[in-house]
Amino acid sequence: MQYFTGFLGGTRLLVPEEGACILYVSTVNYEAAKEYVRDIEIEPIRIGDDVNDKVASQVKRLGLRIIGLDRIDASAYLKLKEVMKDANIKPANKLVSSLRKVKDEEEQRRIGKASKLTSLGMKRAVEAIKAGMKERELASEIEYAMRRNGSDGTAFDTIVVSGVRSAFPHGGCGDREIADGDLVVIDIGAKCQGYCSDLTRTIVVGETSSKQEDLHKIVLSAQDKAMRQIKSGVKACIVDAKARDLIKKRGYGEYFVHSLGHGVGLEVHELPTLSPKSEEYLEGGNVVTVEPGIYIPGFGGIRIEDTVLVEKDGYEKLTEVPYSLQA
Amino acid sequence: MQYFTGFLGGTRLLVPEEGACILYVSTVNYEAAKEYVRDIEIEPIRIGDDVNDKVASQVKRLGLRIIGLDRIDASAYLKLKEVMKDANIKPANKLVSSLRKVKDEEEQRRIGKASKLTSLGMKRAVEAIKAGMKERELASEIEYAMRRNGSDGTAFDTIVVSGVRSAFPHGGCGDREIADGDLVVIDIGAKCQGYCSDLTRTIVVGETSSKQEDLHKIVLSAQDKAMRQIKSGVKACIVDAKARDLIKKRGYGEYFVHSLGHGVGLEVHELPTLSPKSEEYLEGGNVVTVEPGIYIPGFGGIRIEDTVLVEKDGYEKLTEVPYSLQA
Repeated sequence: MQYFTGFLGGTRLLVPEEGACILYVSTVNYEAAKEYVRDIEIEPIRIGDDVNDKVASQVKRLGLRIIGLDRIDASAYLKLKEVMKDANIKPANKLVSSLRKVKDEEEQRRIGKASKLTSLGMKRAVEAIKAGMKERELASEIEYAMRRNGSDGTAFDTIVVSGVRSAFPHGGCGDREIADGDLVVIDIGAKCQGYCSDLTRTIVVGETSSKQEDLHKIVLSAQDKAMRQIKSGVKACIVDAKARDLIKKRGYGEYFVHSLGHGVGLEVHELPTLSPKSEEYLEGGNVVTVEPGIYIPGFGGIRIEDTVLVEKDGYEKLTEVPYSLQA
Repeated sequence: MQYFTGFLGGTRLLVPEEGACILYVSTVNYEAAKEYVRDIEIEPIRIGDDVNDKVASQVKRLGLRIIGLDRIDASAYLKLKEVMKDANIKPANKLVSSLRKVKDEEEQRRIGKASKLTSLGMKRAVEAIKAGMKERELASEIEYAMRRNGSDGTAFDTIVVSGVRSAFPHGGCGDREIADGDLVVIDIGAKCQGYCSDLTRTIVVGETSSKQEDLHKIVLSAQDKAMRQIKSGVKACIVDAKARDLIKKRGYGEYFVHSLGHGVGLEVHELPTLSPKSEEYLEGGNVVTVEPGIYIPGFGGIRIEDTVLVEKDGYEKLTEVPYSLQA
């Protein structure tokens, strides 16, 4: 709904093949919708109204026969199916998510701004990190820096995982105190007018070990090699394979436990997916992450991630922060 | 899944009537699940595995015949229906949400802690607010205070709406500069170990007008009157009616455009609902918000909200901040 209307407070949006779209908005957001929504009919839902019944009458009035539903809860789907007996109703999640894959100029501008704010947050992390600090405290400094400079919030829950916890790719952040020599994986994202960015660096406070340095070099080479593949027309699984093969050859294949990357837009995870099974081809205007990682249980993990814009003949890196392992 | 397992990184959770629960976890979160999940079988989903197929084989193996699905996307529901042809599959959203209505001691402790952090954030807001500050800047100060003191993030997007924008109950926060004499509605929530809190105050920087003061008194009386009704066994719609009738009698009925309150737990909006149409009865251990409001388009809005624990003979207020209108 945000993609089509620019407004977050709607309950249902009806997009007929011809004629005006209708946004159903409960009374709590009705005045805001009147202020912020343009070129779309706004229909209030009053306390006690059933929005599905309202949509069903409109569908009948317009004589619509085939209805594709964007992501919707199964019980709402069944309710709509029941009240629109004459229509052919089916989930059509990919319809909207496919439209969203190629970002227009304004979307690129917003993701670009979110990426600048995210980069600034990472610079703050490198500046603020010190031994004895809790993961959570570092997260608070990063988020504050992004927010104060104009971020609309975080694109996802900030990840700061240290020491053995850095082997958990999505480990959140907790009360663990960062110690000298710890690997610290920092994965953050700012938001700008609804659009996300996504950036990871791995740093060590104090002395680095040679194993940490070796692993860091492997992950960095994997990212570089994958990134060089990126341009319009390339199959997404090929980009994943470039990074995965390099890590495999260096003996760490089993420790790269996720896909290489994902699209970024209104959501931090959207299409296209850069994974071994991806059947998609990159297109100019896609925005994707490139984020290889190696996670060794009991030792720790390293991930390096940037958000990039796919172009006709290459890519533009939207996040910009040095890659140095040592803080 | 978090409710049953304490872990956020699962993809599907199978809870058979008898025997062990099984948590399906993709490889990216598998090591973390092994570290943090207790007394539940963990089944890895490798890149390329189809989780629905895996669940379906297990359902067949266990001979399960009736499957209730907690909230799930319609397309996943249809896929599961297709791969589990022999089972009777139906959405059962209310099954889990009903279980979650009454909070146990540990849940109450977490919501209590989140409420303390939220109260602290509001005190910071009152201290930091000044004319010329952007809504967004005030939000950054509030979030930083909550986070630095131990919040796990925000329970929802912080709302700071000022001036005419204060008439939009869910108006987010933007670049508008707060001016002397503006009504400013501040609606915030911290999180503690997954659990939310929810608190709103409305304040004015500089001189208040007599109309602002009158409206503030009405909303405060409405909250007080509703709150006094709260105890185990009371019908939720009666609590809503107490506030709504008072606001109606004072001539502002049409401007109270939302329900009086909602349950708070792992999500900031859950059961029970305090609305005119609610058929639920309050029970000891429910945690609910009480948040009447008056929103006059073109003039501004006032909302006052606290999070309270329902008890046998009354309630305990979990959020604690003065109600003064003047900052």
